[in-house]
Amino acid sequence: MVLVRQEIGDVLRDFRLQQGRTLRQVASQASVALGYLSEVERGQKEASSEILASVAEALNIPISVVMREVGDRLAVIEGLNRIPDTLPDDFVASVDVDLVSR
Amino acid sequence: MVLVRQEIGDVLRDFRLQQGRTLRQVASQASVALGYLSEVERGQKEASSEILASVAEALNIPISVVMREVGDRLAVIEGLNRIPDTLPDDFVASVDVDLVSR
Repeated sequence: MVLVRQEIGDVLRDFRLQQGRTLRQVASQASVALGYLSEVERGQKEASSEILASVAEALNIPISVVMREVGDRLAVIEGLNRIPDTLPDDFVASVDVDLVSR
Repeated sequence: MVLVRQEIGDVLRDFRLQQGRTLRQVASQASVALGYLSEVERGQKEASSEILASVAEALNIPISVVMREVGDRLAVIEGLNRIPDTLPDDFVASVDVDLVSR
């Protein structure tokens, strides 16, 4: 089962690390307990919408950017973003037909 | 404050209504209490990641599609999807320069 909170945690942590900030700094600015934010980042706790908004604001990232990134990562996990590594069957079939008909 | 649960609720309800299904049908298939799903749809209750996955599965919608739609709607609310109604400043500036230089 693909869990949204796991991706939310990963995205929040990645944005924080990109900014070179500590858990303590972001938790303090977001008025969230450090242990709580740590659990959210590790996907162990569901963040309420209010906490999410507060942490995103502390990171200066619009919440829409956070959630789109979450959606994109979930799509990769669900295999919806795969680049095909073989030619499409109908293309292959059409080529075969052309070769046969010549 | 923009609340993620509000958009999640709207998206889940919209997908359900697109399929012409009742709260009772989806709640039953997702093994979620009808009153709970109703509150989630109205943005009154945070859905756990397990509930979200279960409801998305009952709707036959990948959870990534749900979360991307949530992200897109949040972006509209945050004004990040606006189409500019004036020409970009640098374009206007470049046209002015061209006219002056001729």
